[in-house]
This record gives sequence, structure tokens and C-alpha cells, in this order.
Amino acid sequence: MSDLPSFSHLDAHGGAKMVDVSEKPVTRREAAASCRVLLTPATVERLADLPKGDAWVVARLAGIQGAKRTAELVPLAHPLALDQVDVELSPGPQGVEVRSRVVTTGRTGAEMEALVACATAALALYDMVKAVEREAVITDLRLESKSGGRSGEYRRGE
Amino acid sequence: MSDLPSFSHLDAHGGAKMVDVSEKPVTRREAAASCRVLLTPATVERLADLPKGDAWVVARLAGIQGAKRTAELVPLAHPLALDQVDVELSPGPQGVEVRSRVVTTGRTGAEMEALVACATAALALYDMVKAVEREAVITDLRLESKSGGRSGEYRRGE
Amino acid sequence: MSDLPSFSHLDAHGGAKMVDVSEKPVTRREAAASCRVLLTPATVERLADLPKGDAWVVARLAGIQGAKRTAELVPLAHPLALDQVDVELSPGPQGVEVRSRVVTTGRTGAEMEALVACATAALALYDMVKAVEREAVITDLRLESKSGGRSGEYRRGE
Amino acid sequence: MSDLPSFSHLDAHGGAKMVDVSEKPVTRREAAASCRVLLTPATVERLADLPKGDAWVVARLAGIQGAKRTAELVPLAHPLALDQVDVELSPGPQGVEVRSRVVTTGRTGAEMEALVACATAALALYDMVKAVEREAVITDLRLESKSGGRSGEYRRGE
Amino acid sequence: MSDLPSFSHLDAHGGAKMVDVSEKPVTRREAAASCRVLLTPATVERLADLPKGDAWVVARLAGIQGAKRTAELVPLAHPLALDQVDVELSPGPQGVEVRSRVVTTGRTGAEMEALVACATAALALYDMVKAVEREAVITDLRLESKSGGRSGEYRRGE
Amino acid sequence: MSDLPSFSHLDAHGGAKMVDVSEKPVTRREAAASCRVLLTPATVERLADLPKGDAWVVARLAGIQGAKRTAELVPLAHPLALDQVDVELSPGPQGVEVRSRVVTTGRTGAEMEALVACATAALALYDMVKAVEREAVITDLRLESKSGGRSGEYRRGE
Repeated sequence: MSDLPSFSHLDAHGGAKMVDVSEKPVTRREAAASCRVLLTPATVERLADLPKGDAWVVARLAGIQGAKRTAELVPLAHPLALDQVDVELSPGPQGVEVRSRVVTTGRTGAEMEALVACATAALALYDMVKAVEREAVITDLRLESKSGGRSGEYRRGE
Repeated sequence: MSDLPSFSHLDAHGGAKMVDVSEKPVTRREAAASCRVLLTPATVERLADLPKGDAWVVARLAGIQGAKRTAELVPLAHPLALDQVDVELSPGPQGVEVRSRVVTTGRTGAEMEALVACATAALALYDMVKAVEREAVITDLRLESKSGGRSGEYRRGE
Repeated sequence: MSDLPSFSHLDAHGGAKMVDVSEKPVTRREAAASCRVLLTPATVERLADLPKGDAWVVARLAGIQGAKRTAELVPLAHPLALDQVDVELSPGPQGVEVRSRVVTTGRTGAEMEALVACATAALALYDMVKAVEREAVITDLRLESKSGGRSGEYRRGE
Repeated sequence: MSDLPSFSHLDAHGGAKMVDVSEKPVTRREAAASCRVLLTPATVERLADLPKGDAWVVARLAGIQGAKRTAELVPLAHPLALDQVDVELSPGPQGVEVRSRVVTTGRTGAEMEALVACATAALALYDMVKAVEREAVITDLRLESKSGGRSGEYRRGE
Repeated sequence: MSDLPSFSHLDAHGGAKMVDVSEKPVTRREAAASCRVLLTPATVERLADLPKGDAWVVARLAGIQGAKRTAELVPLAHPLALDQVDVELSPGPQGVEVRSRVVTTGRTGAEMEALVACATAALALYDMVKAVEREAVITDLRLESKSGGRSGEYRRGE
Repeated sequence: MSDLPSFSHLDAHGGAKMVDVSEKPVTRREAAASCRVLLTPATVERLADLPKGDAWVVARLAGIQGAKRTAELVPLAHPLALDQVDVELSPGPQGVEVRSRVVTTGRTGAEMEALVACATAALALYDMVKAVEREAVITDLRLESKSGGRSGEYRRGE
């Protein structure tokens, strides 16, 4: 129809379909994503000052386990065997930054897995701070980079 | 220790625990959340111009089904029987707004379910537009209102 | 618009929504369903002649466990706490009859759970006979009876 | 013992076992299945006349997501990475026909996935029409074709 | 037949059935369980000496999340809404002791949930120490106490 | 730091991470585990004397299905496609012995899957005997053997 790229999982009429990836090669693919949980400096400080850092582990694990369930959460996503899921949280003046990195060896990339990892980690963190700061906002959830697929290397902002 | 509210699920030392809600009364509780998927006007227009609107249904269903799985995704959340989950998506000049509303009759509120509903709906939408606009960003995921619990009525910005 | 009953989960325009059941009373509800797995007499006889009856237990358990997951499989179904799920299989000349009965105490009926129980039991049975009789067909999956809800007692064929 | 094919997952005594597929080659495998949801012409017409076609999308997605969970629903089925799941619904004079097609690259076929896809799509459709027509019946759930495995090409009725 | 108590979920012939709990009253029920992960003193010391205690949080969360999924893992268990799940791990000279406590308000007790919580916490701990000490053994998984049901208060060893 | 093997999934500071297995070769891997459910001879005899052996099938299936969900239960475990899961239960004078064997073709071993299979089979058995013998104990859950990975063949007690 045109030179524009097509929507994933949508045909030309807008009908939703799961893409057939059986003809794509099996390659090592990697994707990274990030988001932020906006919090007041006072809340970040209280969190960071707790003697035990369980909150960070809870959020990291939620991210890892969320990534594994991407195909159940995102209806048209393919189930993928993940080789690694890494989630990091860094407290800063404006809140907490969440970064994920997912590696898979398969026929389709781990882009959605990386985003789901960040989203579930951020939601788990929100769940712990919500009584302290109900105005907390999860923001800027986005893909940072992607490699290993047909579409080549992608790095945000390049 | 102080007048500050306590973190949910974290004890005074930062140790993570699931809150005991068995003494809380069973009441009708409602929570609403929202987020936005930032897209260029061209992408929103292409989406909106498709003859079939499957993309919106896919995202709405992802939100509804995500809400039902909140206790699996958010490690310290209590499993809740949900009376209703409603997810709406509205295309606008800057992207797509996602709004959710969750009703439960139980011992704890549906705040996390409302947030998970928005997050999974937005992620499902992202999954469909990602080949067209990889820079799409999910942003401003936040609680809009909450009622029916011990802490009274909450409405954002009041 | 008319006196016709409305579609469940669909508004007047055909938009899909999860029904709000929060105003419905909590009552004991029961539903029964059935289906058949059509098999040649030879296959039924071979199954029935096996010294161990594991196949029947596998199918019964699949039905019970399937019923528990109804809200994950049927997108607009409400999660329900089930009080009992009973699945029976009876071999006969034309195949195997599957009957389920589900009891719940809640705000909405267990109709879908009873149907899912029969369907998953039948699929599990099919999985075991498929190498012997690939033409096996699962048929006549239907609600047999329902009670305890606002719509009163229902019994098929009355 | 005889020339008859053996039951899958059942040993000679009827004991249930999961088949060992580790020695089978990894090949591209495809399976198609179908079923019908019997409805009165009036109900089909009402469904088809709705301005929005959400009901069809809900059923299609239920089928796709159900297929992904086959190994959880069918106790002795192997977990499979699916390359594609396609579900189509066609309204006709006697009800709605559901057809699925599943592609996998693995050591065992996607036969059960194709059947589960049809069953869950049909159950989701039933869930929407049940208040209008409780006598709706899901029928003729069966394998249509299968290819790519050791047992060669299969096409129903040939 | 006799004064002996009956097996749960098994009829007099040994047929497996899910018990009907719809006639049982809704009460607050509590159950506690424990197990031990046997490790050499050297391994326990190394674990305890790590600057970050993530391993303990991982195991605790695995226990909490496992408890929520009891009805999926134990085929004839009823799905329960849990009010609280608490899991503690204590390193000692012979390994690590795991203790769980589960609270529910429902028609059946949380005995299985308490046991599943200990088992999954212990398995998650094993997963982290397995490269260091493959001979690690999970042992003495048992119910410690139970209250709130028809059968009265139970405390092990009394 | 030293010649000691490192903890799996834990970095040198004790921070929990999911191991990256993308560089490991795909090989056929096998793992076997076992545990025991301690019961009085009277209970074992009653179980074994039941005309129908459903209890054994329920426990075996729980083990098989539990193994498939290992990556959901053990937070840092990788999702694996399983080629086979075999679970056997043998009644003896001191209770019931549970043995599992899991085969996978992948980048990491099926050690955790074999242990989870035994644990869930034992828990399902406990669920059926608990009303008869609440003092039942699940014990000696351990890896029996492992092969196919980088670390070579392992057999307990050698």
C-alpha cells in the first residue's frame, strides 16, 4: 500500500492476528528497557535509609517473574524461552529508575519482555510506597535498545 | 516512631511482609487509574483509520485479563475476587489515553488491579504499534481515585 | 430497545465489557454441563479394558483444574472461588460422556466453569486417544442445568 | 502385542505417562482444528448486526491465549513454543464456525494447541451469547489437518 | 464402614473427588507449617556472610507467591482468598529452617497453602545453593498448627 | 576470590540475579530427584487397599504439572521446554517414596524441575491423607542424579 512500516499483529484492515515467526531464523536477541517511578525526595530517602533493602529485591524479582509471563499478559506475543532477565533499580533525587535487560535465543525479540519487566518491577515498588505517597507515578516506560533481529541494532535517540 | 505513614508490606527495618488483612471489614471498594501511550499524530491517525478496531479490543482485553492476575504479578498483593474491570482507550493528538476502573468486594482495595489493568492495556497497544513507532512511550501511570476502604475517599489532585 | 435479553458482556453497540456484579447478592449457585467424545466402539473397549484406569483420572483432573482457571481462559468471566467441581466420565457405545457439576458461593454463576470443566476433561481424553483414533470428535458441549442465581432454576429441555 | 497403534501417554497397562520426545527431531509442524457454536439464526443475526464487532475479537483472542496454555490445561501435553496461532470465526445460518491453525517448530505437534484454541474461542463466544440463548451448543470440535511430524501429513476425511 | 477418619478427596472406593465445602461456614482460619533445608555449616556461613541478604528475600517471596498458587499445584485443593502469608527463614548450624503462617477467611483451611509456602521457599533457596552444595536436602516438611475449622485447634505433638 | 564454587543466581555481594545461559550449548539434559512421604503402616495399607488407585494418579499428575511450572515457582529459574516428566510413587513400610525424572533439551538443566515434580506430587498425596494422618511428613527431597550439562555426570553418594 505504501512504504510505511506495518503495525505488528494487525492486518491491512486492522484485524488482529498473531504474526507467524516460523520462517525467522533462531538468533541471540537482546532488548533493554527503562522506566521511572516518580517519588518525592523524602520518600526515596526513607526507602534508601531502611536497614534492610527488601523493597529493591521484591521489585527486581517482580520484574524478572513478570518478564517470564509476557506471553500471558500481552495477547499476541509469542511465548519465548528466556536466557536471562536482569532488572536494576536506582534511587535518585526524583524517584527510582528501573532498567531491564532481557536475552533470548529465538525467532522473535525480547522487546516486550524487557518492557514488561520494567512495568512489573515499577508496579511492585509502587505497591510498597503507595501508603506513603499515593501520588507516585510510573513514567517513561520505553525501549532503550534492541539487537539480534532482522531489523538490526536499535538504540534509542540515535 | 513518627507520624509518617508506614510503607505497605515493609516493616520498620525494611523487611518485606504481606500485610494481614483478616481483621479488615469486607466492603465494596473501587479504584480508577490511568496512563498514556505517547504516539505521533500520524500513528494515532493510522490506528484510528483502520476499518476494523481490533487493536482497541486487544488492548482492553489485555487490561481486563491483566487485572485478574495482579496477585501473581505484584508479589505482596492479596488475591482478590473482582466484581468488575473496565478499561477504556481514547485516541488523542498526543497518543492514546488508557483509563481503568476496578470494583471489588473484599478486605483490601483494588488499587493495584486498576494500575495493572492500565499497564497491561498500554503494553498490548505498544506491542501492536512498535513496528511503526519504536519510540512510543508509556507514561503517567497513576491512581486516579479510590473509595470504600478505611482510608476514605481519595481523588487525585484534591 | 426491545424485550429481547441482552448479550452478556456486550453493550448495545457491541462493545465488550465485563459485567459489574458488585450489586448482585452472594448466593449458593450450582451449574451442570456435559459433552461427549465420539469414539469407535473398538477404541472405547480398548480404553475400558486397560487394567489401570489412569486415563479416566487424568481426564477428570484436567476438568477440575480447568474449571479453576475459567477466568483466565474466558476473558470476560469473573474470578470465582469454587466450593466444588465434580467431573464424571462414562464410556458408552458411541464414545465417552463427560458430565460436570460446579458449586460456588458468589455473585455470579458457575455456568462457564461447568462448561470449561467438560471441555478440558474431553480435551485431555482426546490427547490420550489421538494416536489410536485421530478422527475423535468432541461434541454437544452444553449447559445442563443452573440454579441459585437471579434468573431462577434452569434445566435444559424444559 | 498387536499391530494396533498405542494410546498416547498410556502404557500397556493403562498407566498414564508423559511421552519422552527428546529423541524426536525438531521440525516445523502445523495443525488445524475446527468446531461450531450452534445458535439460532436470530442470535447470529443480532451478533452480526452489532455496530462493533468486539465479540469476534474477544473470542479470537481467547483462542490464541488458550492455545498458549495448552500444557497447563492438558496434563500430559508438552510445553511448546508456538510460532503462530490463528483463529477465525465465521457466522453462518446454523451458528458460528471456529477454525484454528497453529504452527510450532519443535519435537511434538501442535494438535492439542489447535483444538484448545477452538475450544476456548467457542467458550468465550458462548460466554457472550449465554444470556440470549442458553441452549447454545459447542459441537464438532475436531482436528482438520496436521503436518510436519513423523506420522506424515494428515487431512481429515482422506 | 469404621470409625477411622476418611481420606480427603477420596471416596470409599478410592475414586478422587474434590470435596464440596459449600455447606461449611466461613471462618477465620490459620495454619502454620515448617521444613528445613539441610546444609553444611560452611555453606550456611557463606550465605549468612554475604553483604546483601537477597537470597533470603528471594526464598521468602517464592514462598508467598507459591502459597497463592496452591489450588493450581494441588489438583483437588479449593481456590482460597488469602488474608496473609508469612514466611521466615532462619539459618542455623544444620542448615536453614523455613516457617510459614497463612491466614484465610473461608470455607476450608489454609493447611495446604502453608505447606506449599514452605516447599517453594525451600526450593528457591536450594536453587541458589545448588552449585555450592548439590547434596542439600529439603526435609521435615510438615504442618505445625491449624485453627479455625470444624476439626478444632491442632498443634503438632500435642 | 577463592576456589569455592559460587552460589547460583547470587553475585559476590549476595545480590540476586538470573544467570545468563545464552552462551551455554543446547544439549540433552536429564535430572532425577526423590522424596518420601512418611506415613504409618496402617495409612499406607489403607491407601494401597482401596479398589481404585486414583490417589496415585492424582499425585503423579500433580508432579508432572508442577514440573512444567517450575519457572513460575522458583523465581530465578529459566523457563524450559520439557521433553519428558516421569513421576513414580511406591508405597513401602514407612510411607510412600516419590521419584521423578525430567528430560529437557536446552541450555540449562532440569534439576529444579525434577525437585519441583517430587515436591508437588508429595504435597498432592499429603492433601489426600491429611484427614487420616495429619502428622504426615514430607522428607528427604533431594537430587538423585543429573547429566548432560557442563558440570558432567552427577550421581548422589558417589
